[in-house]
Amino acid sequence: MAEPKFTLGIDYGTESARALLVDVASGDEVATAVYEYSNGVITEALPDGGPELPAHDWALQDPEDYLRALDATVAACLKEAGAGADQVIGIATDFTACTMLPTKADGTPLCTLDAFRAEPNAWIKLWKHHAAQPEADRINQTARRMGEGWLERYGGKISSEWFFPKALQILEESPEVYHAADRLIEAADWIIWQLSGNETRNLCTAGYKAIWSKRDGFPRRAFFEALHPDFAGVIDDKMSHDILALGDRAGGLTDEMADRLGLAPGTAVAAGNVDAHVAVPACTVTGAGKMVMIMGTSICHMVCGTEEKHVPGQCGVVEDGILPGLYGFEAGQSAVGDIFAWFVRSCVPAAYEAEAEDRNMSVHDLLTERAAAYRPAETGLLALDWWNGNRSVLVDADLTGLILGMHLGTKPEEMYRAIIEATAFGTYKIIRTFESRGVAVDEIYCCGGLPERNDLLMQIYSDVTGREFKIARSAQTCALGSAMHAAVAAGRAGGGYDTIEDAAARMAGIRDRVYKPNHAAHQVYEKLYAEYHTLHEYFGRGAGDVMKRLKALKGVG
Amino acid sequence: MAEPKFTLGIDYGTESARALLVDVASGDEVATAVYEYSNGVITEALPDGGPELPAHDWALQDPEDYLRALDATVAACLKEAGAGADQVIGIATDFTACTMLPTKADGTPLCTLDAFRAEPNAWIKLWKHHAAQPEADRINQTARRMGEGWLERYGGKISSEWFFPKALQILEESPEVYHAADRLIEAADWIIWQLSGNETRNLCTAGYKAIWSKRDGFPRRAFFEALHPDFAGVIDDKMSHDILALGDRAGGLTDEMADRLGLAPGTAVAAGNVDAHVAVPACTVTGAGKMVMIMGTSICHMVCGTEEKHVPGQCGVVEDGILPGLYGFEAGQSAVGDIFAWFVRSCVPAAYEAEAEDRNMSVHDLLTERAAAYRPAETGLLALDWWNGNRSVLVDADLTGLILGMHLGTKPEEMYRAIIEATAFGTYKIIRTFESRGVAVDEIYCCGGLPERNDLLMQIYSDVTGREFKIARSAQTCALGSAMHAAVAAGRAGGGYDTIEDAAARMAGIRDRVYKPNHAAHQVYEKLYAEYHTLHEYFGRGAGDVMKRLKALKGVG
Repeated sequence: MAEPKFTLGIDYGTESARALLVDVASGDEVATAVYEYSNGVITEALPDGGPELPAHDWALQDPEDYLRALDATVAACLKEAGAGADQVIGIATDFTACTMLPTKADGTPLCTLDAFRAEPNAWIKLWKHHAAQPEADRINQTARRMGEGWLERYGGKISSEWFFPKALQILEESPEVYHAADRLIEAADWIIWQLSGNETRNLCTAGYKAIWSKRDGFPRRAFFEALHPDFAGVIDDKMSHDILALGDRAGGLTDEMADRLGLAPGTAVAAGNVDAHVAVPACTVTGAGKMVMIMGTSICHMVCGTEEKHVPGQCGVVEDGILPGLYGFEAGQSAVGDIFAWFVRSCVPAAYEAEAEDRNMSVHDLLTERAAAYRPAETGLLALDWWNGNRSVLVDADLTGLILGMHLGTKPEEMYRAIIEATAFGTYKIIRTFESRGVAVDEIYCCGGLPERNDLLMQIYSDVTGREFKIARSAQTCALGSAMHAAVAAGRAGGGYDTIEDAAARMAGIRDRVYKPNHAAHQVYEKLYAEYHTLHEYFGRGAGDVMKRLKALKGVG
Repeated sequence: MAEPKFTLGIDYGTESARALLVDVASGDEVATAVYEYSNGVITEALPDGGPELPAHDWALQDPEDYLRALDATVAACLKEAGAGADQVIGIATDFTACTMLPTKADGTPLCTLDAFRAEPNAWIKLWKHHAAQPEADRINQTARRMGEGWLERYGGKISSEWFFPKALQILEESPEVYHAADRLIEAADWIIWQLSGNETRNLCTAGYKAIWSKRDGFPRRAFFEALHPDFAGVIDDKMSHDILALGDRAGGLTDEMADRLGLAPGTAVAAGNVDAHVAVPACTVTGAGKMVMIMGTSICHMVCGTEEKHVPGQCGVVEDGILPGLYGFEAGQSAVGDIFAWFVRSCVPAAYEAEAEDRNMSVHDLLTERAAAYRPAETGLLALDWWNGNRSVLVDADLTGLILGMHLGTKPEEMYRAIIEATAFGTYKIIRTFESRGVAVDEIYCCGGLPERNDLLMQIYSDVTGREFKIARSAQTCALGSAMHAAVAAGRAGGGYDTIEDAAARMAGIRDRVYKPNHAAHQVYEKLYAEYHTLHEYFGRGAGDVMKRLKALKGVG
């Protein structure tokens, strides 16, 4: 029997990176290792006694952390599996996005050079760096004024988290950094550059974060020029028009990196990718009409269709952006698990904490157990899940959370249940909005931390939406998705697969437990959803702009 | 020097009765005693192994408790003060209302007779007995249909807590009790009957709870007949058309009662009164345009005017009902301190409880300390104070609580502050509604537990309303108010005063500390109040009937 072949998938998250060594034939996850970034998320001062950051909405990272993650995890996986370098046929990564940095022509990050080490704009801007909001506002205004057609592909508004607001912030605040930067690049592509020695750009981040499309390419030069004369050449001078498809081979592992990581030189390295998107085939989804939800602190909703559609509040539609040959749509809820965590942190009495401790369970589990005793609508409560604004379908960061229906006997578990229900209504709103614009959502697949942990939540989502919820088999769906893309980059000739469909058929799976909707519960939830919709429209679409006026008043007192 | 003269004021509350012995000349409170009712509030089963009550919204009391309270407290006060029977020149009581009972012609409560002891409708219906809602609904419908003019004196709707719904419940559910009852009487008047031997009826409960007015008397016989043929004679057969004014002498203490309590026979006994209303002169208020707020678990707002006006959501307007010669208006918020207690019970994390315990302070005080660090509007939160429905100005028990503006960093103390502010907005709404209908509110006086305990709350009320808040000197304002009425019942000739104004001038007072509005804070709160008003109208006046539909859905799931 031939030795098994493996691929390495490496999932670069916000706080850590996780490597997964996967058997290409079976999808068995044979080894895993995690590295917590030593400089984590930089929000207050630059490392090594560097200066403080200009404002509280900055979030930076250190490129050395990404390399240290490779050192720490790859060797650990090989050792755990007892695998030889020749057994590893491919390596792929997925990343948070847009997470971007300025580099020299050889890929050296500016922040690693003495001349720029104390300059915040020379560092990596993490996805949740929110200090480029003024630039995002100007980009949106300018695009509307100039009638840029791409705007409607992104729900009518691009986010401050994306590529060009961040790039423009560098130019405006630190022109010397901007001009010293030979390249501006996604970290997703920078890490591939380090592994393969080739500067490449991947279709996923280009499409979802840098306004690129297969049909129209990037926005025109005149648009960038209108933002700032020195910004006119941002594409031609600092980026690349050559965009690799997902699963394309970016190159072979360099000798130096092979030696450093204990892998074979020339091992296939896949094009960069985004954490959420690689999860789609890892949930077995390779066709249209099957929504994948990554459910954790927030929820990312992805679904593919056969035509380009413009859906209110979609984060973007990108041809080939999730799966080849299909239009990939993305939407999201900006806080889900984060709201439950807030509730447990801020709203749960001591007696509950004591009981949970006595019974050796988490407060979440205790609240869930108690919340499960209620029927739909029995609490009389209703919430709007906007604790971190509303990403889809309203695209409005200035909205806030609401809960109503409290009386003097209302219990914490009732409020907890109402918040879970509110997040389910938020997902239902997204699904119904997609469907109303002709994007089918026929099946739902989930992955992420929440489906692992909370039975009640999954059942409520199923009851609210009236749909089955299937759960990915892997607990590390993103890393598995990268390992699958690595197998595609290796190709059948190299011991892998020629298509992501083939890789999914062999390497991905779902669990036996499928959540099925209770018809009676769904009927009641339809009535509650009608009330959610009423509040959604009142507070979200202008008539009741109370939330925004309250935010505006915060500084007045 | 002559021996000081005293009066006794006895405040019959929901859980206990409190007696206060007061120096008539100075208002000094020389002794006090409290008696907790041994049968408390009867909500589940009748005492002594009696049957269970028919429903959870019943609330009964035991007349023996009222007599035991006299035994326990009067003697204790005399002993504490070292006062002789001849030094006590008058006695007066105030009561919760409408708290009513059926009796025989000699005043014997039906529930003390073996034949009726197991019959819930024979017992005293406490003010918060809410099981007569169907009867209240019929009374309101019938009054509207028959065009009864008195309806608008009560804000267009009478409450299930009042006299005739409770009386009609007795007739409909237990006709044998109704027919055996020679009298139906307020406990406020029943206790005076026990003390003086005279059956009297007081103007305050007659006016506010039994739809009596000086001009029109009770509702006409045809109205009662339309409700039920056997109800036609409820006034003529079981009540009384002779209504005593407040401070009138109901009689002298009977020999038997004098002996029992250690007082002198013939001691002046004042007409019955209501707890909230006697507090008005005890706050020094004896004229028009001065609002008195009793601030505790709920808030009762009373103000007198020189003309009858119809104010939306007023609980009633009664000529001479609070002060002689003036129209007394009453409004209220059905939960205030109750909401803060709910919050502390249901929404405060263990770490807060631990810190409060370490620092030997209450959780309320800890939350208040932290909440005080915020400027108006800084929390970005806004609440509707409807945890127990809305009494004024919407008169709608089906409304519920709301809080909005939460984000992932929202802290418990911010929500606590938002709830305090919401109750202040509720009071401001009441004040503005009075003013809009021509009832002046020129000054504000407070008493009750909240002003004693919470500096921040008082400052917020002052800042929200833009008015000074003065606080009664006495911590036992109701009992003091009764003692003042006792002095009026004794009269100047009997060692007391001829008018409540004279009594107030000598026996009542306010504290040095007056809460004054901060102008800048008031300006910000005006903006927040505009937002409160927006939500108030949306959720309270029909357009956003979300709260009611959620209540209706509670039983559906």
